[in-house]
This record gives sequence, structure tokens and C-alpha cells, in this order.
Amino acid sequence: MKYLLLFFFIGFANGYSQKRDSLQLREIVDEVLWNSTSYDNLRVLCKEAGPRLSGSPTYTKAVAMTKKMLWEAGADTVYTQECMVPYWVRGKKESGAIILKNGTRRELSLTALGNSEGSGGKDVSAKVIEVRSKEELEKLGPELEGKIVFLNVRMNPSYINTFRAYGESAWSRSRGPSMAAKFGAVGALVRTLGVNLNDVPHTGLTIYNDSFPKIPAVSISTNDAEFLSDALRNDRVKEATFKTYCKNLPDAKGWNVIGEIKGSDFPEEIITVGGHLDAWDLAEGANDDGTGVVQSIEVLRVMKALSIKPSRTIRAVLFANEENGLRGAIAYLANAKEKNEKHIFALESDAGGFTPRFFGFTTDDATYKKLLAWKPLFEPYGICDFLPYGGGADVNPLREIGTTVASFEPDSQRYFDIHHARTDVFENVSERELKLGAATMAALIYLVSKYGL
Amino acid sequence: MKYLLLFFFIGFANGYSQKRDSLQLREIVDEVLWNSTSYDNLRVLCKEAGPRLSGSPTYTKAVAMTKKMLWEAGADTVYTQECMVPYWVRGKKESGAIILKNGTRRELSLTALGNSEGSGGKDVSAKVIEVRSKEELEKLGPELEGKIVFLNVRMNPSYINTFRAYGESAWSRSRGPSMAAKFGAVGALVRTLGVNLNDVPHTGLTIYNDSFPKIPAVSISTNDAEFLSDALRNDRVKEATFKTYCKNLPDAKGWNVIGEIKGSDFPEEIITVGGHLDAWDLAEGANDDGTGVVQSIEVLRVMKALSIKPSRTIRAVLFANEENGLRGAIAYLANAKEKNEKHIFALESDAGGFTPRFFGFTTDDATYKKLLAWKPLFEPYGICDFLPYGGGADVNPLREIGTTVASFEPDSQRYFDIHHARTDVFENVSERELKLGAATMAALIYLVSKYGL
Repeated sequence: MKYLLLFFFIGFANGYSQKRDSLQLREIVDEVLWNSTSYDNLRVLCKEAGPRLSGSPTYTKAVAMTKKMLWEAGADTVYTQECMVPYWVRGKKESGAIILKNGTRRELSLTALGNSEGSGGKDVSAKVIEVRSKEELEKLGPELEGKIVFLNVRMNPSYINTFRAYGESAWSRSRGPSMAAKFGAVGALVRTLGVNLNDVPHTGLTIYNDSFPKIPAVSISTNDAEFLSDALRNDRVKEATFKTYCKNLPDAKGWNVIGEIKGSDFPEEIITVGGHLDAWDLAEGANDDGTGVVQSIEVLRVMKALSIKPSRTIRAVLFANEENGLRGAIAYLANAKEKNEKHIFALESDAGGFTPRFFGFTTDDATYKKLLAWKPLFEPYGICDFLPYGGGADVNPLREIGTTVASFEPDSQRYFDIHHARTDVFENVSERELKLGAATMAALIYLVSKYGL
Repeated sequence: MKYLLLFFFIGFANGYSQKRDSLQLREIVDEVLWNSTSYDNLRVLCKEAGPRLSGSPTYTKAVAMTKKMLWEAGADTVYTQECMVPYWVRGKKESGAIILKNGTRRELSLTALGNSEGSGGKDVSAKVIEVRSKEELEKLGPELEGKIVFLNVRMNPSYINTFRAYGESAWSRSRGPSMAAKFGAVGALVRTLGVNLNDVPHTGLTIYNDSFPKIPAVSISTNDAEFLSDALRNDRVKEATFKTYCKNLPDAKGWNVIGEIKGSDFPEEIITVGGHLDAWDLAEGANDDGTGVVQSIEVLRVMKALSIKPSRTIRAVLFANEENGLRGAIAYLANAKEKNEKHIFALESDAGGFTPRFFGFTTDDATYKKLLAWKPLFEPYGICDFLPYGGGADVNPLREIGTTVASFEPDSQRYFDIHHARTDVFENVSERELKLGAATMAALIYLVSKYGL
């Protein structure tokens, strides 16, 4: 009887608590869906700052802009963390073409790869060797001497999560040029990492291996890649030619931007929610990662708007230099270690402002189980699952100090239409989707701030 | 022991069958994601036919176009079903404004409501009475005499499924004008049925009650609705004025377009998969319902491409006149009854070509349970649930002859950005999302064609 009563009370308490959490989450979601400033903030960030690659004057402008947004959201404190960042500039617009054996010239839709060394405006012209996989690259290796490598690695459309296809193919852009330079290639044409066929080339980071020549490298559109592949198969190609003007300047100053609401009960326990403030230079960095930035700011705004005093400290962190160096993330971890901070949880939104589908977590089993118990609270908002893996480029370094890291995982179908491309503009963000994402992120951060991990 | 063995064999057989189905579904999905013609078909329908309201010459053009597409998809038979349809024309572009007491005039972003009678180009000018609910309309009734009613019913942004908000608010457009005419209102300004605040007015059907005068009625943008409401609250409004040129012509000819693959084992059992071919005149009817049209055609193409000979007959049906009369759906049912056809299942895609989330079914409990057993087969493709309610305006009439009716339910966040508006264009459809929808639809139709219901 005694046990029965105990069970009854525990059951009652749990039931009550879950009911209360469910109501609080509904309030949080409603507050975002009715009153969020995230969409307006995104418009400002995209239209008034725009492209904001590390080191650029617009990045500095975006820092000032988002500091203001964090104050307006109701942060107790707003500050920056300085770090030195790579400073890559595109220079004049690059160009290139395929020269066919019949004498015709087909202009390419191309864009220089981030951090690549330019050709200094000189033509890189050579025969073209197509490579479709790492194995083929190794096999054809010796033939690449003096040639332009065409890294034609298609993202697999069969994968329902497009990030999986990206993960499998991204080596072609990030490591491919150096892998070919090892064999003496003089330039690289990389198929754009997009699932669909169109004329929009995507930029993105390439990482040179210092042991080999740093060859000029560009991305060409998927349509151009199909054309070139077909023309090569039919032996119609004389050569390719392209020129770029980009270069790497000396490192410049960069800043993480941080807004904080101090925890009322356990202020020393820190929860990070963030995205990255830098963005490639071709567009406005709307979905990559303006949406993560404004959603993180929104998390603070909701707490203030609903007069929630979180038990634990919540920090919105807008990371510097995710795209081409991760220096912001490294600085954030270094600061945390230096100050001996206790980081219990870090959530990143860097997969676009699309409809929420999942949260993903990298943590120990016991913590994952604890998190999993909250899953039913999120089902009404379209979150299908809590995945046992997750994180983000900016928060993953915190694993070193034992932090549970997590990713906000929205629907992935449209992400690689805009990723690092001129199409990543404000107009391609859905207001409802953006807000629903911010709402679920705020709900998760609320639960962690209430219960800890 | 005997029973145990029996269990073992049943288990084995079921397990084998489910594994085989799972592999077949993967093949179907892959075929669509790699080779679908749905996106190209949609481009043709949107750009070469475009707006295709019932009765219009472009509707006739779209009939010819989609017959060709059905043949190309590999239908055994392609034919049309004639029906008479309402023929509403907008005429010259409508206009209107709010006149403030200080003498300034604010032009309105407005559009005449479908099937509404125009003012014949004459100004409808009168004081404005705002109404926010059915209750308020009844209460304020007598004040409406000689006035313009402003039906300011906001779609509730709290609902995660935007169709729920639409369902609650749509009376303001469909019945509101006549409800106000009952009290002597002389015109209606209806707040656009969209969740977000912007300048894009949406048209859509209004249904007059023949007992009252058929007053001119327009939809105004959500921004204009907010402005007007605010100005009324502050007593700044002198009057509103608007004029429309639309009219209802005599009924015209319309056609359902049908493509069929005859069942190899049970040809008399008919499975319908469809969308509607007509679309409002303001844009291209891309998501409403070009996507449903091309997805339905794609279901046939996949069967042929994979050499699947369905046991039961599969019909892709492109319904006439969903938007302002449902005459195509009525004709389809009448035909089925006349020929004593056995319609076992009918699936409609009319909620946009967005990422698949659910299928919904209206049927008896036993059939629902049977369908539910297939749910796990769809989880890899992002289908979260099989809902115990569903259907569509065109397939619902088949309930009368005992058909299980179903809806393809994609993510709903962006639908009311484009619904019946100038923004419903090809460019606002995602290629990946469209195809993933077609893939899951083809998978469901395959299972029904194999197992029956």
C-alpha cells in the first residue's frame, strides 16, 4: 500500500510536470508564431549587411547589427570574442569555357572555390581529365600531369537526407584539387555540390595540402558538368580554360558575437544556442546561416517576452568563420577552457531555416535517454525523432570538455539548391518555416535550462 | 508444435513479403528521384498553358497537353470525360482604395473573388464595418445596411498545420459576402486567407446565397487588412471604394482527363490517383494543383518504367473544375455509378508539391488497420504517420459508392503563401520536394494495386 501510494505520487508529479511542460512549450511556440522578430531580423541581416565573409567589412557591419539585435531581444549582456580569421577575396569575376574540337567555345557557369589561390587573371588552359571517384582519381593519377582535372562527383539523389549525399561527395571540392595536384594537375573544375541539374554554381571551401602546388580551382554548374562529361565521352573536347582573380590576404580580425541571459539558480551551467555569422560572398547567406543566427537570437527574445527566468545560463552565440576556418569555434572553446566554464549543452542551427524535422544529439547514453523522454513534447510541432547523433561544426569542439552537442535538423530537400550559391537570399526563406524552427529550438533550450542534463 | 510451426511459416512469409515490398518501394522511389519527368511536365503545364480556370481556352490547351503527357507516361488508354462547368471571367483589373478622413487615399492590393458578380466597373463606395467572427457579424448585422463589410478573419498562426487555420477561417471568403448581404451590405472586403503579413491578395471561391443580393466582393492583402483595421480603430476611415469587372458567363464545356493502366489480375478493381487540372487565373496554378497533376501522371510512368504490371487498374485522373464547382468530381462519380464500376481506392494530391509528411484516409476501421500495417514501409521516406482522416474535394464524392479515399499530405507551412495568388508559379516549387511526393504516392498506389483493400 505504501509503495502503491508512492507510485501514485510519483506518477502524479511526473504527469503534472509533463503537463506543465507541455503547456509551457505551447506558450513558447505561440509566442514565436505570433510575435517573433526573427524574420525581420533576417531581412535586415540579408539586405543591410548581405554577404559577410570572414575578414570583410560587411562582416564587421554584421557584428554591430547583431549586437543590437541581441540587446533588443533582451540579453543581460552582449559581448564579442575576438579571433584572427582567414581573409579570402574573390577579386574580379572569374570566367572560363570549354573549347570543343570543332572550334566552338562554350562558356561555363563557374565560381572560384573559397580559400583557393587564383590564377592572377592568367588563363589556365589544358586538356581535361574526368574523374568520378577517389578510386578513379588514384587510378588515372599519372594521366593528370599538366592537365585540368574535372572532378565530376554527383550527389546521390537517392538519399532522402541530402546532407548524406553531400557528406559522401564533398571531398571532391574540399580535398579534390590538392589530390589531383599531387599528380601534377594544373587546375580543377569541380562539379557543383547540388542534387538538381541547373546553371547555378556553388562555391565553398577547398583545403590545400601544403605538400603540393596550390592549383586554381573552380566549381562549375551541374548542367555544365553534364555537358562536359557528355562531350568528353564523345571525344569532342579540345581543352578547358579558366581564369580567377582570388587570393588569400593576411589574417584579419573576426569576432564571435554573444548574448547571454544569466541563469537564476545555476548560473555557472552554460547552454549555448548558435549559428554562424559569416557567409560566402555570392549572396546574402540567408539560409547559410542567417537563419541560424536569427533563430538563436529569437531563443533569448522568447524567454524575455514570456518572463521566463531560466535556471541555467543561456547564451546565443553567433560564431565567426565557420565557412573557411572555424576560428570562431576554436576561440569559443579556448575561452571556455581558460575560464574553466561548465558547458552542459550546445545546440547549433546550420542546416537552413526549413520546417523542423529532428533534433540530433551527440552525448553519453544516459543523457540521450533523458533527452529522449522529452521527444513526445515535440511531436505536436512536427519533430519526428530525436536522433542519436548530431552536432555542428561550431559546437562540436565543445565535446572536448564533455558538452552534449546537438543539431537542429530541418527538412533537407531545398538546402542544396541554395548552399553557397547566389540563390541563398532572403526571398528563399519561408517565414513560417523559419519561425517554427526557432520555436522548437527555444522549446528545447527551455527544457535543458529547466532540468539540466 | 503444429501451431508453432504455423506461426513460424506465417512469420516467415510475412517477413519475406515485407522485405520484398520494402525493396520494391526503394526501387520506385529511386526511379522517381533519378528519372522523374514530373518537374519537366510541371514546367510545360505552368509556362505553356499557365492559368487555366474552368471554361477558359487555356484549360482546353491544358487538356491536350496532359493527354499527351499521359500517353508518354505509358498509359494503356487516355480519354476525357466531358462535363459542363461554370465560366467566370475577371475582365479588366479591379481596383480600390480606402479614403481617410484627412482626405488621403490608400490604394488597396485586392483581387475579385472567384464566381463573384462584378460592379460592372462602377464604384462601390460606402462606410466600412469591420467584422472578425460569425458571432460579430450576427451581432453587428443591422449596422451593415448600405455599408461595405470588412471581413477581417485572421488565419490562426498557432496551428502547426496551416490547413486547420484555413478550415476555420475560410467561411469569411466563401460565405461571408452573402452573410453580410443578408443584412443589406453593398460590398465585401475580405482579408486574404494567408498566415503571413504581406501585400499579396489571394482569390478563391465565394458562394452566393440566392436569397440575397449578389454583392461585389474582393480579397484584400493581409497588410491592407491590418492597416484598415488599425485605421478603423482610430476612427480615421471615411469610406472604402472599389470596382470590379468580373462576371459569370453561361456554363462551358470542361473535361476530366484520364490515363489508365489496366490491371492484370483484377482489372475491374479501380484505383484512382489524381489532382485537379483547373487553376485560378492569377498565376500558373503550380502548387494548386499542377503538382498534383504531374505527380499523378508520374505514378503511371513509374509503373511502366519499372515494368510493373499492376494487379488492379490504376487511373490517373486530372479533375475538371475543382476550384469553382466540383463538376469534374461529380461527373466522375456519375460515370462510375452508371458503369457500375468498383472503385476501391482514390488518392488525391491537392495540398501542394511540398515534402511528404503524412497520408490520410477516410475508410472503415478494418481497412484503416490494413493500411496502417504499411506505415513502416514509408518511414524511410519521411512519412511520419498515416492519419485516420483524409481525402480530397475531388475524390470525396466516391465515398458514396464505398471507396476508401485518401489524401497526400505534404508539409503545409508554405502553402498559404501561394494559394490562389500571383505567387503560385513554377519557380516556387522545389524539384526535390515534388519528386519525393510523387515517389511516396507511387509507392502507396503500388501497394494498393498489389494487395487490394
